[in-house]
Amino acid sequence: MNFIEKLERAQEKNNSLLCVGLDPSLERLPEACRLEPQPYLAFNRALINATADLVCAYKPQIAHYAACGAEAELLATIGYINEKYPDIPVILDAKRGDIGSTAEKYAIEAFERYQADAVTVNPYLGGDSLEPFLKYNEKGVVILCRTSNPGGGDLQSLEVDGEALYLKLARLAATSWNRNRNILLVVGATWPNELARVREVVGDIPLLVPGVGAQGGDLAAVLQAGLDCRGAGLVINSSRGIIYASSGEDFAEAARQAALELRDAINTLRTNV
Amino acid sequence: MNFIEKLERAQEKNNSLLCVGLDPSLERLPEACRLEPQPYLAFNRALINATADLVCAYKPQIAHYAACGAEAELLATIGYINEKYPDIPVILDAKRGDIGSTAEKYAIEAFERYQADAVTVNPYLGGDSLEPFLKYNEKGVVILCRTSNPGGGDLQSLEVDGEALYLKLARLAATSWNRNRNILLVVGATWPNELARVREVVGDIPLLVPGVGAQGGDLAAVLQAGLDCRGAGLVINSSRGIIYASSGEDFAEAARQAALELRDAINTLRTNV
Repeated sequence: MNFIEKLERAQEKNNSLLCVGLDPSLERLPEACRLEPQPYLAFNRALINATADLVCAYKPQIAHYAACGAEAELLATIGYINEKYPDIPVILDAKRGDIGSTAEKYAIEAFERYQADAVTVNPYLGGDSLEPFLKYNEKGVVILCRTSNPGGGDLQSLEVDGEALYLKLARLAATSWNRNRNILLVVGATWPNELARVREVVGDIPLLVPGVGAQGGDLAAVLQAGLDCRGAGLVINSSRGIIYASSGEDFAEAARQAALELRDAINTLRTNV
Repeated sequence: MNFIEKLERAQEKNNSLLCVGLDPSLERLPEACRLEPQPYLAFNRALINATADLVCAYKPQIAHYAACGAEAELLATIGYINEKYPDIPVILDAKRGDIGSTAEKYAIEAFERYQADAVTVNPYLGGDSLEPFLKYNEKGVVILCRTSNPGGGDLQSLEVDGEALYLKLARLAATSWNRNRNILLVVGATWPNELARVREVVGDIPLLVPGVGAQGGDLAAVLQAGLDCRGAGLVINSSRGIIYASSGEDFAEAARQAALELRDAINTLRTNV
């Protein structure tokens, strides 16, 4: 089963387009977790157990682990999901990008070392830089297209051949690069107009949408702009709004409540589009 | 002392524009290193000891360590250079790029965890994504501009506002983004014409040039195109051509010989430009 099939099955099973970002920072963890020998793992396990029936994917962001040498906890987190909740795909958010033999090493890092189902990548180095990822045809390759930050347009919105660079990229990704049908694109929730244009260009390629919640993206606008012709095709990520829903000992329960509300809000809006 | 001063002092002290890429792969190491408890560290230490008077920088590529969980060996390699050869700057080749609080974590990874003097970054996410790196004003931020791979032009050479994207980026980097004077740019040795255009646009900003040796870049053309008005401003990287100069037990001696020849070839060409 390839990544997109696995993702769609999880979306159907849990009736959910919600992805939870597992991006822990030590200073923000509840005290009970901070005192554990593996604080990030303890935090993540509680969050995963509390939300696994509500999400279509988990997305750990690797910098949060790499900044403090917690690779073992990232490995154990992904291992825990793969063992306890094998139906839920894991997207390793790493935004890797390099060339030739080095890109191969990054693909090994994501898919073999960490056993992720998909990885985020940066397209600035061109199509051949993505080949070492794309050739894992059971895995998903999630390409940055139009990112959610204010400066995202510095390069992405420059006009080339009469359209913005991010649209040109979306076209390249949807056509020449997608031979194995394992590409997804990242489009920030903060740019619903751009999201609509990407959707027009890429057909039913799934879009990973960060930027709801803390970054202020408008959920109704995202669904209006981003759903594919089947009323699906979106993976809507929330990290801080869920994992830090409470800073107390009830963090997992609060995370479940926040995830439930966001999943249901998405589903209500889906049926109204 | 900031990164660019440290780099220029090392270039003068060792009369060298040569950077050696420390990109080990287990299957290519000499047997004596493979049998060590920390094979990459053993290999790197021997290479460093053999070349430290011939180079202006070392550039470990992080994927080679991350693919196999050898973060501790990368850390120890950089620690070894910082302790034994504190005049030689270390460029961590990581090609990181993300936004906001995540970019901050990547900057912590490079500059605090690994204690690198500089890090390579990917500009696709725009100026604000680079701020968390640039604000370390003693550190160097090496931005991908025109990469050496065949597909590098897929996005980088698209025409925007009457010039190629990589030139537009070079202009942005040299002006709006370089408030702390700690930016460098990556331009592949395989594109000497583009290198000349970047040099025109960026004045004396140092350029990191990979792609001589295994990738086939022409050294004479690189120097002709890339030297700044002082006959310097280049960091010419070679990895495989030096670290795998011999696969036998004489690998360190062979690496020294290869580094010496390349450094001297660069210097001969410099004086003829």
